[in-house]
Amino acid sequence: MPSITGMLTFQEAAARFRDASLTPRDYLEQAIATLQEHEHRVRAFVCLDLERARQQADAATERYRRQAPLSAIDGMPVGIKDIIDTATLPTTMGSDIYRAWRPAADAEAVEAIRLGGGIILGKTHTTEFAIGRATITTNPHDATRTPGGSSSGTAAAVASGMICAGLGTQTQGSIVRPASYCGVAGYKPSWGVLPLRGVHPVSGSHDHLGVIAQDLDTAWATARCITQYRPTQASVQLDTRTGPALEPRPAGRMAVIRTQGYAELDADALQAFDARLEDWRRRGALLVEPGDDAQLAALCHELDRIPALSLELVTHDMRWPYWSYCQHHPQAVSQKIHDMVDAGLKITPQRHGAVCAIRDGILARLEALAAHYDAFVLPAASGVAPVGLDNTGSRTLLVYASFLGIPALSLPVLQIGHMPLGVQVMGGRFSDHQLLCHGKWLMSLSGM
Amino acid sequence: MPSITGMLTFQEAAARFRDASLTPRDYLEQAIATLQEHEHRVRAFVCLDLERARQQADAATERYRRQAPLSAIDGMPVGIKDIIDTATLPTTMGSDIYRAWRPAADAEAVEAIRLGGGIILGKTHTTEFAIGRATITTNPHDATRTPGGSSSGTAAAVASGMICAGLGTQTQGSIVRPASYCGVAGYKPSWGVLPLRGVHPVSGSHDHLGVIAQDLDTAWATARCITQYRPTQASVQLDTRTGPALEPRPAGRMAVIRTQGYAELDADALQAFDARLEDWRRRGALLVEPGDDAQLAALCHELDRIPALSLELVTHDMRWPYWSYCQHHPQAVSQKIHDMVDAGLKITPQRHGAVCAIRDGILARLEALAAHYDAFVLPAASGVAPVGLDNTGSRTLLVYASFLGIPALSLPVLQIGHMPLGVQVMGGRFSDHQLLCHGKWLMSLSGM
Repeated sequence: MPSITGMLTFQEAAARFRDASLTPRDYLEQAIATLQEHEHRVRAFVCLDLERARQQADAATERYRRQAPLSAIDGMPVGIKDIIDTATLPTTMGSDIYRAWRPAADAEAVEAIRLGGGIILGKTHTTEFAIGRATITTNPHDATRTPGGSSSGTAAAVASGMICAGLGTQTQGSIVRPASYCGVAGYKPSWGVLPLRGVHPVSGSHDHLGVIAQDLDTAWATARCITQYRPTQASVQLDTRTGPALEPRPAGRMAVIRTQGYAELDADALQAFDARLEDWRRRGALLVEPGDDAQLAALCHELDRIPALSLELVTHDMRWPYWSYCQHHPQAVSQKIHDMVDAGLKITPQRHGAVCAIRDGILARLEALAAHYDAFVLPAASGVAPVGLDNTGSRTLLVYASFLGIPALSLPVLQIGHMPLGVQVMGGRFSDHQLLCHGKWLMSLSGM
Repeated sequence: MPSITGMLTFQEAAARFRDASLTPRDYLEQAIATLQEHEHRVRAFVCLDLERARQQADAATERYRRQAPLSAIDGMPVGIKDIIDTATLPTTMGSDIYRAWRPAADAEAVEAIRLGGGIILGKTHTTEFAIGRATITTNPHDATRTPGGSSSGTAAAVASGMICAGLGTQTQGSIVRPASYCGVAGYKPSWGVLPLRGVHPVSGSHDHLGVIAQDLDTAWATARCITQYRPTQASVQLDTRTGPALEPRPAGRMAVIRTQGYAELDADALQAFDARLEDWRRRGALLVEPGDDAQLAALCHELDRIPALSLELVTHDMRWPYWSYCQHHPQAVSQKIHDMVDAGLKITPQRHGAVCAIRDGILARLEALAAHYDAFVLPAASGVAPVGLDNTGSRTLLVYASFLGIPALSLPVLQIGHMPLGVQVMGGRFSDHQLLCHGKWLMSLSGM
């Protein structure tokens, strides 16, 4: 279910750009038509830049005509989460404090997307600073439900076919969760892989830039474009031995993660998840349960410590700039952020160091297991998108990967009634490419 | 020569605040009077906030009356370099791009100074983004000469007695050099000690926040206030076993650094430097020359590689956000920055990694010698401040400490004609407190 609109996916479109049976400009016009049809209900965008987008699409059209596209995403309509700086469009951070803010520079990831020929359609709604109060975006599958946060607009715009991929960020659960709720592919890379310069910070220890896309190929192509033009110290660690394109690669043993966090899952979600695992097993997947491996059971036990520890690190890191916002713009800051800042101020440097040491210990345990398992599998959310827009959903099952800095995907392979739900796949640090290849294999096992 | 105006130093004033024979408000009014007398010539400030400063001074007065000052800098007039964010004052970065910019949050260091009761008098002029074209500030000792860059306004304001200390930043030489040219104390801490959040970046690998002050005690008190209220991972490494206040501590062996960079020194500067070393030797200092220690000679040889390597790292790091500024605001960016960005784009990730590895090797060599030497001594600039405002001076002798991330001081102990010049003292990483204590001893050896 890459799109609820029936538009060509970008992978399909790009093949036609190359054989000249479709132009990026025509494809963009379809995306804009889709947007105009659904945006009044979905409310994915803070602002649009259609004129520049059309100019860019014409330039891409000309490049394909010369058989010289700039990258694998040349001519692709993209959305940018509105905590990511853009020099050509406002960047509101989802906060009244930045209502009138227009950055002087693009974020590095935005620079890279422009250099690769990606077409920035506009800025997508985020919750307040990606951590505070919810935004107005609705779930494309059911307008009475949240699209998930904080990358709300990006996920909803991809799911409704307005864009093929978009930039999101994840501090605790903000890429994998909205991707799950909206039924699209989410890719939260290993920590540090995609450049954060020009992205408003929540927590230096937890913040990740990532991609929400129609499918894994498009997510990977977007991330690859960014690291090709704006490599980071971490991105050079990525396993790209098999080349930039993804291939479905059968995983060896995979570990099923089951934690106390499962208590949040309702019966339907748990049943759908387990049914999908059973189906994968029937098709040859080797999925090991914690009951069958004491080391894995011990890891699951350790993971249950993470939600509380993660909150300590995040609130500690939020000290800046949120303490200052609370001082200078107290009315504009939500109570949630006031409370987080207050909590963070109580954390001493000693406690902060202790939490980091615990994190390193849990990561070492996970990495040891990653030598025996090609992936770690668990639900990508604690159920389908909740009704209402104020609650953007639980982050319990998402925060493990954020806290540890390991890569995580949301695979859109579950359906409960009319609502999608994702399966989350995590891997060892910097195993991103291999994990995506396994993810693609799991998608094919699911008939997608 | 803490001040050219004869005003009480802050250390003297604070003693009188405590015995109630002077109030912070009265002291501030003296600073403002000094400012009003000299500012038309010195041009240290981009903007002032006298009303708020007076309110803060009255609040400090009340705290001393209750014998409850907030920190060792409570009631001290301070200036903030204008690439450091302030929520109460504009922050222009020395660039037309930010002419109208007013940050929403204070930089962490500014938060800490406010929490400690420091009184922010205003924002001090910087060269363009602390790396590009020079600013309008003049040298308080001679208005035909540069005060040095890039922390031009901070150094000039301290030297003319408008403030007791100010925040500066050093990417290559921007604290130690203006401190030397203006005849005041400069303290560039070990890399990472003072928080950079809210400071406009030049180069993540090189940027340091630091202090320019009337004397070393005041510089250290300012830095201590910042790390007490806003500790960093690095600040907890500082040697503070002997308590926060500085004591003059005789150094054991000290190494004289002599490099090819000395070729830039004119005869007067070299003579004044060597005469000061001879005087210190006569007073008991153990200063070892490279000719008497092969390891030290080898280190000096390695240091000569640094200016070129440093430029590679800095221009590489400048890719963001300067490339974007050059794209979106080409007319507002100086040719120097355009050229640096162009140079940086040519540096591959592989070359970047190689330069970092060379840096680590030179640092290891220096740290090994730091086990045998309490300090490394060299001139704090390649001569006195040049005539004219466009050339803010050479950074050759300053960049060693910036590239390696080791602490460096400028001690105002030389005089050539009417112009001051500093002696630079460097130490092993995180030896800041010990280095300042040795610096205080060297000041006392110099009769200061």
